[in-house]
Amino acid sequence: MAGLHKWILVINCGSSSIKFALYEMADISMRIRGTLTGIGKENGHFSATGATGKVITDETVHLPGNQDAFGHLLNWLRYIGYEKQLYTISHRIVQGGLHHSAPEKVTEQLLQQLEQLVPMAPLHLPAELSGIRFFQQQYPDITQVVCFDTAFHQTMPCTAKHYALPQALTREGVIRYGFHGLSYNYIVHTLQPAGKTIIAHLGNGASMAAINGQQSVDTTMGFTPTGGLVMGTRPGDLDPGVLLYLLQQQKLSPHQLHQLLNSQSGLLGVSGLSADMQQLVEAAPENPQAAEAIELFCYQARKQLGAMAAAMGGLQTLVFTGGIGQHLPAVRAGICHNMAFLGIVLDETRNQENAAVISHRASAVTIRVVATDEEWMIAHHTAQLLKQ
Amino acid sequence: MAGLHKWILVINCGSSSIKFALYEMADISMRIRGTLTGIGKENGHFSATGATGKVITDETVHLPGNQDAFGHLLNWLRYIGYEKQLYTISHRIVQGGLHHSAPEKVTEQLLQQLEQLVPMAPLHLPAELSGIRFFQQQYPDITQVVCFDTAFHQTMPCTAKHYALPQALTREGVIRYGFHGLSYNYIVHTLQPAGKTIIAHLGNGASMAAINGQQSVDTTMGFTPTGGLVMGTRPGDLDPGVLLYLLQQQKLSPHQLHQLLNSQSGLLGVSGLSADMQQLVEAAPENPQAAEAIELFCYQARKQLGAMAAAMGGLQTLVFTGGIGQHLPAVRAGICHNMAFLGIVLDETRNQENAAVISHRASAVTIRVVATDEEWMIAHHTAQLLKQ
Repeated sequence: MAGLHKWILVINCGSSSIKFALYEMADISMRIRGTLTGIGKENGHFSATGATGKVITDETVHLPGNQDAFGHLLNWLRYIGYEKQLYTISHRIVQGGLHHSAPEKVTEQLLQQLEQLVPMAPLHLPAELSGIRFFQQQYPDITQVVCFDTAFHQTMPCTAKHYALPQALTREGVIRYGFHGLSYNYIVHTLQPAGKTIIAHLGNGASMAAINGQQSVDTTMGFTPTGGLVMGTRPGDLDPGVLLYLLQQQKLSPHQLHQLLNSQSGLLGVSGLSADMQQLVEAAPENPQAAEAIELFCYQARKQLGAMAAAMGGLQTLVFTGGIGQHLPAVRAGICHNMAFLGIVLDETRNQENAAVISHRASAVTIRVVATDEEWMIAHHTAQLLKQ
Repeated sequence: MAGLHKWILVINCGSSSIKFALYEMADISMRIRGTLTGIGKENGHFSATGATGKVITDETVHLPGNQDAFGHLLNWLRYIGYEKQLYTISHRIVQGGLHHSAPEKVTEQLLQQLEQLVPMAPLHLPAELSGIRFFQQQYPDITQVVCFDTAFHQTMPCTAKHYALPQALTREGVIRYGFHGLSYNYIVHTLQPAGKTIIAHLGNGASMAAINGQQSVDTTMGFTPTGGLVMGTRPGDLDPGVLLYLLQQQKLSPHQLHQLLNSQSGLLGVSGLSADMQQLVEAAPENPQAAEAIELFCYQARKQLGAMAAAMGGLQTLVFTGGIGQHLPAVRAGICHNMAFLGIVLDETRNQENAAVISHRASAVTIRVVATDEEWMIAHHTAQLLKQ
């Protein structure tokens, strides 16, 4: 802790967890990263590791709400002596709406504009905004920054952004924004791909993006993170008639429908066992429903691979990232199965080894496994913005 | 009218129109076909043509309801002398649910089972069932037959049929049934395709089916005809989050949402002009919104082509049918644009001529234009069933 530092504290705030990371402003080198999980639940948890991956702390804590979690984090940063040289706090914001895409410094006006977007992202924005407010109170003089998860997809053409809905809805912002933008941005920044690339960000939330040159031209998620691919607890895109049937014939309330589609569907709904792909892969040999959930996930991913390739008119590189994409060879194999018509041929051995390049020599498409780092991307954007 | 005939009267009953056709049982040769349109509207219309296409009648009539329309048709058949040798009446039924797929003779038990499926197809089934009841009253001794529009897709594997929804919903029948099955069946019966085929049935309702060998393995429409591709007034598949937003934040009632998604979206919603593709193609040069609607239709169709190819692991034949598919070269060209990566290359001249084969010599995929005939398929199935 000797010497002069300017720390960027990156906050990536989910609905019941917070990821954070501390970077040196000068070279965007990571010093500490960690998570606060189980917020609002029985058992909260706080853990942090250093730059080398060494565990610094790993403790059970009671975290009744987000404010408690932020308070716990701050106290800990004080305790280990990192708080004094805190230079900026930068937040991942899920949704920037029609008018916000580039990273921005937080102002009262910006916060008011983001408040108005809450109906478009009611699960995520309130927690994210409460984080900004918390740090404003604690450090009124520190500049805060926001980076939007939708920003990377601003380059999509209108035909990819627009739904076939009445124009009035399109104009007021009911369009495909796409998400996981900071993850895609990191992969593109790191790989600098040429030609036509599909990135599959497969985690508890999952999406794919079609990247032509280095620009997003289409993506599977849409207006909200509920659509696109099958996910842990979400079904992906649906025939709207399914929802109308559940509302009109089965008399589900909008709230019940919301719960069904955000918390009870996807891998969890199909398997009846778990939303966690790792658990399903382990259970599948003896559990047909777990096997069906995996098969459905992979099948829908294959169809979306075909759709994303069609969006660009071809494919040269396929990148897997995210928890599932980086660590589960069986799922990558399931997604690449029978896709030779697109030039996708996996090397079984390299795939099993989670190698950086897992395509077969005969594969026209280069298939890569890349670790993503949304927090680094946020720190990078923040440093760029504040250097201006 | 001399000689002995056994007529099959085919009834294809929509929500505000009825198509009918009369076939000779022995060789399934068509004698008369026609339509009753504008049912329940200001101006009803009745028209019929003979086997050679010659107009037999073309008149404005007032048709307050379906019963009036059926009554008008029967009186006319009596008037021109075809009623006496009516052997059977066969109906297209939109939805057979989990337990009905093969063509069946109408029984009271079957009607009761179909009544229970009304919540799954509230726009179509009641009118279709009322048609069967009407003819039962008129001709209690004539055998009636039903053919299901979902039947052809029974061969789809579970991974294509199932949504990533909780198992309980899947078990009770909230699955992908697919529609336009009688049209796909006709095309497959006529072309006898080998290998991997995609049929694009593009009319006011539009869908695609992936046909491997001669069996449906996936299709774009799902539980209802609202999903899949962009259509005249329907948006196709959507992020469920769009519907939740409209319900929870914009406070649309389920009924309003139903109207929005079945009557105000699709080509009509985007263009603000018309649900009719022919009109949009004519308007597009001077109307940017009409052009956008066409572009969106073609773009989503390209993505679904990619998805259907992925469902089979490749593509050898692409068939266009339906009103748009058979008659609008500009739309076929838009759908085939930039699809050479799938082996799809159009011959511009043949496409303009609506030729039977419109693929370029260099195209790996054979592209065909085929007229569909759902009524003939129904008559064929009916004759097969009654000959047993």
